[in-house]
Amino acid sequence: MLNPVKVGILGLGTVGGGTVHVLQQNAEEIARRAGRGIIVTHACAKELNKTHPYTTDDIVLTEQLTDLVNNPEIEIIVELLGGTTIARDMTLQAIANGKHVVTANKALIAKHGNEIFAAAQDKGVMVAFEAAVGGGIPIIKAVREGLAANEVEMVTGIINGTCNFILTEMRDKGSDFADVLAEAQRLGYAERDPTFDIEGVDAAHKLTILASIAFGIPLQFDKVYMEGITKITPEDVQYANELGYRIKHLGITKRTKKGIELRVHPTFIPNKRLLANVEGVMNAVLVESDALGASLYYGAGAGALPTGSAIVADLVDVTRTLTTDPGNRVPHLAFQPNALVDLPIVPIDEIESSYYLRLSALDKLGVLAHVTNILSDNGISIEAIIQKEPIGGAEHVSVVMLTHQVVEKQLNRAILAIESLEGIIGKVTRIRLEMLAS
Amino acid sequence: MLNPVKVGILGLGTVGGGTVHVLQQNAEEIARRAGRGIIVTHACAKELNKTHPYTTDDIVLTEQLTDLVNNPEIEIIVELLGGTTIARDMTLQAIANGKHVVTANKALIAKHGNEIFAAAQDKGVMVAFEAAVGGGIPIIKAVREGLAANEVEMVTGIINGTCNFILTEMRDKGSDFADVLAEAQRLGYAERDPTFDIEGVDAAHKLTILASIAFGIPLQFDKVYMEGITKITPEDVQYANELGYRIKHLGITKRTKKGIELRVHPTFIPNKRLLANVEGVMNAVLVESDALGASLYYGAGAGALPTGSAIVADLVDVTRTLTTDPGNRVPHLAFQPNALVDLPIVPIDEIESSYYLRLSALDKLGVLAHVTNILSDNGISIEAIIQKEPIGGAEHVSVVMLTHQVVEKQLNRAILAIESLEGIIGKVTRIRLEMLAS
Repeated sequence: MLNPVKVGILGLGTVGGGTVHVLQQNAEEIARRAGRGIIVTHACAKELNKTHPYTTDDIVLTEQLTDLVNNPEIEIIVELLGGTTIARDMTLQAIANGKHVVTANKALIAKHGNEIFAAAQDKGVMVAFEAAVGGGIPIIKAVREGLAANEVEMVTGIINGTCNFILTEMRDKGSDFADVLAEAQRLGYAERDPTFDIEGVDAAHKLTILASIAFGIPLQFDKVYMEGITKITPEDVQYANELGYRIKHLGITKRTKKGIELRVHPTFIPNKRLLANVEGVMNAVLVESDALGASLYYGAGAGALPTGSAIVADLVDVTRTLTTDPGNRVPHLAFQPNALVDLPIVPIDEIESSYYLRLSALDKLGVLAHVTNILSDNGISIEAIIQKEPIGGAEHVSVVMLTHQVVEKQLNRAILAIESLEGIIGKVTRIRLEMLAS
Repeated sequence: MLNPVKVGILGLGTVGGGTVHVLQQNAEEIARRAGRGIIVTHACAKELNKTHPYTTDDIVLTEQLTDLVNNPEIEIIVELLGGTTIARDMTLQAIANGKHVVTANKALIAKHGNEIFAAAQDKGVMVAFEAAVGGGIPIIKAVREGLAANEVEMVTGIINGTCNFILTEMRDKGSDFADVLAEAQRLGYAERDPTFDIEGVDAAHKLTILASIAFGIPLQFDKVYMEGITKITPEDVQYANELGYRIKHLGITKRTKKGIELRVHPTFIPNKRLLANVEGVMNAVLVESDALGASLYYGAGAGALPTGSAIVADLVDVTRTLTTDPGNRVPHLAFQPNALVDLPIVPIDEIESSYYLRLSALDKLGVLAHVTNILSDNGISIEAIIQKEPIGGAEHVSVVMLTHQVVEKQLNRAILAIESLEGIIGKVTRIRLEMLAS
């Protein structure tokens, strides 16, 4: 058997610990597959969590990142620093030193991937990032290799476990967003500052990556439309149920005649769809492609061991291609670097979608007629409508509608007109709706 | 760009046609990924179906299989002959001639894979078989590479579309097995001779392959326990619904202290599980593994284009490793040939499972007490029980029970005792039940 491959880990937090744990616990199983061992020889950590179920006896520990990225003995660097500044510097330096890099850092890839992959290409090294999307689900591998024969049409994913947990709890318990968020924080499913998750930034990082490997376009995080789940109310959750839908926070990227859609937002989807039944912190990605049709990949989107699973799978892959000539490796972004195409990204008001609309109206004859007239004047037809009797002595009724497909700016125009109607109270709530293939 | 890779296809039926179609339709997309073209230069076909949406103008057509497997120009042979005699001969001859082979032939791999992979190993060529399990779903790749860091604990799959279609229709329409089978045959979802599908042979072929790549054991089709769906009645389907379950035809392979379980049979699963919601001809495989936990892979399990998708993905993979030294390629059965372990296969009466039981009893006091006494004497505890009032003037009642986990031979002993009770009419229906992780 060949000598073990030597790995250095930058960052021994939750995921770093999980990676060491998986490598140690399944060392035999991994070597049976890879044909050689994969061992962590060095790790860089500020403070070691002694409660982790792994030993650091055989690992050289240091606080200097450069001790690892400049160490000629280390063949593969695992970057688990988080952030996009030091992580970027260390990744580029490791590449410059001819090392392969495995990373779980979605922000780094989404923001600096184009630069990093170009540098890796020049040096003939791999930068693997399976753990950056969908935690342990081998979704990068599935799209990049498993669907290599396909023209991808659409990718739709539940790719943020925090949002999915909150929306699942809101539905199961009828709770407010704020209450469930507090619970999620208590359970460790949401950060103390949850902005990145609940405002859709984390999902946007992941969607950026999925879009690139699906369509062969450069990474362009700054063009993703982002909307979080903070405005979802128990009322909307309840109406979704009544109408046979569920609200999920989705990353959606789609090939259209206008270009590529790149958007992250809460979405109504029919409750029979598999994605509608992905509960709690679990993740799943639905891919629609021309040869295979609909396919779906489901699993744990976060956590020490699931993420460690993806990182170690990357380590095995990189180990296998150490002796492969770089031109025959799977390209970083699925397509050969010279074959990437800079397709236009569709601005959000140019997308076409169906919508859920909810509005409050004074309980007067004629208001609803005005509303439907406005919609009709804007070429928007209605798929379903619910009007609720006023509760108690209230004077206003809730009206809920599902529309057929329409260009978003057209819908926005209609909403403005509706909001200016006499008898309409406050703003119109608008949530996009996707039927999905499976 | 490198010269295109030259492929010869043995068999231009549905799947062969689908493969040619995918390669032609997505030629540009495939070359953008693979870095070179992949073209079919030769094909062997008895009769060409002229209605296929692809052109054979640039393909040399022949009726002699050996024209292809002995042709030094052809680098990769795609074997789509079906059967295990000529297909085996041609595959071995192609390997002997130093060619790589891609096959969709599950029977061939399940029965002769050990021999074929050994020959391929000797010659340093690849034999790829993604299309053999789950049609276009990249399930072989997911288990073999994506989960390389994991010790796999259990694989559970809906891996026969015909059975799933029939069971879905039986539930949706309350129909008899025979009626739905006739409909499936009319729609082309079942063969004229449906034995292979409905008796579980096809699923057993696929399960054999999944078990090998999950656990690193040799292929051993002859040890799979097989039970089809022909005895499932509308009554059982109805009781499943009432109890919150669905009946699915599953391939199950599990690592236990006694060894590896390898079994194909109808199974009660809770209706909230994702597998329970896989409908019609679709396939899905649930994998439980120690690092990742539960993960699921869903898609089209058959059809020209989905299967073509898997075959072409294999062609891209093989193309990429043409210049890789064989020792660094992904091993055929996921584990290095010298690392396969011949774990014992657990005989079916030694497995542990929960069960659904249905019996008819004369509506007399005491019969049910005798039944529950027998179960209790055999250490079998009951999870749920339904007793239906006699219909019309009938004297017998249906009694339905769900048991807790028990060793199967223990349950069989109890069933024999129950069947010999006075007041019990006919046989006891027994269907295994799995709770599943996700």
